[in-house]
This record gives sequence, C-alpha cells and structure tokens, in this order.
Amino acid sequence: MTLTLYTFDWLPEFPRGFVRDLRVRWVLEETGQPYTVDTVPAYPKSPGHLALQPFGQVPIVVDGDLTLFESGAILMHLGEGTALLPASDRTKVTQWLFAALNTVEMSVMHWVTMVLATRFPDFFGPPPEDVVIEHARREMEAKLEALQMALGGEAWLADKFTIADIAMVEVLRVVESEGALARFPQLVSYVDRARERQAFQRAMADHMQHWRAADSRKAATETGR
Amino acid sequence: MTLTLYTFDWLPEFPRGFVRDLRVRWVLEETGQPYTVDTVPAYPKSPGHLALQPFGQVPIVVDGDLTLFESGAILMHLGEGTALLPASDRTKVTQWLFAALNTVEMSVMHWVTMVLATRFPDFFGPPPEDVVIEHARREMEAKLEALQMALGGEAWLADKFTIADIAMVEVLRVVESEGALARFPQLVSYVDRARERQAFQRAMADHMQHWRAADSRKAATETGR
Repeated sequence: MTLTLYTFDWLPEFPRGFVRDLRVRWVLEETGQPYTVDTVPAYPKSPGHLALQPFGQVPIVVDGDLTLFESGAILMHLGEGTALLPASDRTKVTQWLFAALNTVEMSVMHWVTMVLATRFPDFFGPPPEDVVIEHARREMEAKLEALQMALGGEAWLADKFTIADIAMVEVLRVVESEGALARFPQLVSYVDRARERQAFQRAMADHMQHWRAADSRKAATETGR
Repeated sequence: MTLTLYTFDWLPEFPRGFVRDLRVRWVLEETGQPYTVDTVPAYPKSPGHLALQPFGQVPIVVDGDLTLFESGAILMHLGEGTALLPASDRTKVTQWLFAALNTVEMSVMHWVTMVLATRFPDFFGPPPEDVVIEHARREMEAKLEALQMALGGEAWLADKFTIADIAMVEVLRVVESEGALARFPQLVSYVDRARERQAFQRAMADHMQHWRAADSRKAATETGR
C-alpha cells in the first residue's frame, strides 16, 4: 500500500515553500519511496483532520496501519533502515534532530512569529514593539552562531547527510527567507549545499505545484465552473 | 562506568525545579540506572562547557564513550531497551515525545518567555505589551485544549507510562507554575498522576538538594570560609 502524506488543501502565498510537509516530501524523495498526497482543510479545521492530528497541524502520514504526525517522528520513521538514519550514528543523528526542532526551531519560531505579526497580524496577533523583536533576534542569533561553530568545516551535522540535516535546513530556510541568515556564511553554504540535492528540488517543485493546483481549483470553484 | 549528568553549578531561585536536567534525573530514577552529577558554570559559559554542548545548555550526559545533549535525544537513549520506550509502541511514543518538545513546548516557551520578561527583563529582555502576551497565551491554550482532548480519559499518552509522558509533564509543569493549567482539569490530573511517581519525587528532591548545596558552596566562597 502506498504511503499517503497529508498537507493543507490551500494556503495563502506567505507560508508556501515552508509548510512542514516539505520536510517529509524531501525525505521521501531521498529514499525513493513512492507516496501520494491528500489534503485536509486549512480553515476551518475539520473533524476528520482533528481525528488524524489533534493539534490541527500537518504533516500527517498514513503508512499501512500506522497514522503518524509530528515531522520529527515522521522523519525518524521514514529514515529507519536507510542511510538517512544510519544505525552506526543513530544517537548523534537523533541529538541533532532534536537540536533542530527543540533548540534552533524553538528560538527561530519565537522570533519569526513576532516578525510575521508585523505583516500579518490577523494570523499572528498584535505585533510586539521593535525592541522586543530585536531581543528575540539576538537570542536566535546566539543559537545560530553556536550552530555555525558546531558545524565548523563539516558538510553535514553527522558524518553523512541525514534526517537531522533535512530538519535543520528546513528551519534555517525560514531564517534565510526573513533575511537574517546572511551574517552566518557557513550556514548559508550549508543551506545551499543541501538545496542542491535533487531530492530537495523535486520535493520543492512538487510542493509548489500543489499550491498552484490548489489555486486553480479554488478559482474554478469561485467562478462557479 | 557510571553515567555522568551535567547541570549548572548554581542558578538563582526562579528556574529551580524546571531546569531540564530534571527530565533526565527522572528517567534515570525510573530505570534505576546509577549516575553521578557534575556541573558547568551557568554564567559565564566556559570553553569546557561549550566543547560538550555548543549551545551552552544543559543537560549533557556522558555515558562511556558517548557524550550526548538535547533532553529529547537523552530520553530516547536512556529509554532504549526499557519499558519507557517499548519496542511495540516505539513510533507512537516518539510521536508524542516530539509533540511535547516541538509542538507543546515551542508554544509554551513562546508565551512563558514573554511572561518571565515582565518579571526578569535582565534575563528575558524587554517585556511585550499585555495584548501580545495574551495572544501568545491563547495560542498556547489551543494546544493545551487539543492535548487534553487527545489524552481523553487515558492515564498516559501511549498505553503505558513512557518517556513521552516525562517530557510532556515537564512542559506542563511550566504552565502550571505560571497559573495557566487550572482551566484544563484533565491535564492537571495528568501532571498530578505523574508527580505521584516515586521516581519523580526522588528526582525532584535531588534536583532541589543540588541547588541548596550550590547555595551553601556559594555562601562559603563569598564569606571567604
């Protein structure tokens, strides 16, 4: 049975390219595992969606009898038994996966949620004052500086490219998209190196095609066609 | 060789009871694995600390040849082969571990960092306006409401008590300490149920004793004794 990846039915422009289904598409492209995409409504959340994912988030993966959410857990599940989660380096890869999602992403989201509130208050709430956002940026930059030092001259976080790199690069792309990665040249190179992978490029192309198709469906519905 | 758990040498009152070494102490008490505690300076960070943990955080575990950071990765490592990470339920436990650390904790820390800034601006930066904090609280409460629904009438997140419960309860205790858990009675019961475990009580007692001993050492140093 083919694995099914759930993402949203439609979203406005700003989150496109950054929805967390991309992490899962990327690992699926790396491993060559076939999959199909299905959707849940973004607004409002549906009972069917909440039955699969109590927090109303995506991605969700249905793999045979298994229904699984949380991108970190999905990356571990799909990486299992592949070179993306090698048994010989399992603990270190897991460490960096959690570093991506519990240390770096937590810090990045604290800042970027504030930044996005200045542009999209309907989604992200009233914008904090500049001095508050600036403090959050400095806290995030301390994490990025430490990450850059830890990466050093290495290509990847563990010996080879793994699910930890997929998670970390996906977090860093958010920072880059808001213009805050440039002062960390080794992290810029790291993101660029990852983005050159054909699996990333296929995943991103499919992800963006999904939103274009959603636009077309939406336009057809709205014009009554 | 005995496992070594690193925490900070001393901290002011407010974070005591919530430093992330507690999660690791708890799982070690649950599994009965012997360990010793060593420290790194909290302020300023030392080169030795940053060599073990690039982000300058705790906990760090040294287990034979393995040096490991990130509480999520440490919980998985220490739970491996025990009833706290059962092979039969591994994927679901991993899912809830990531839900604790990447969904619930991310939302809780976004809010609580703002709340703490109103009391400790030297540590947490300039406090946001009330309306900003209130929005973050509502976003967090949506996650807590979803968690309460997902837990339903069950005692634990998976079939039995696991590392996912340790992580989730440690996150919820932060919410409780700021008076924001009371409107989720099933989550209050969940935290209380976990806190009744002798392993938690031993871990917390040792954790608090560590800070009292640190106070005594500090007082002795400052009075020149």
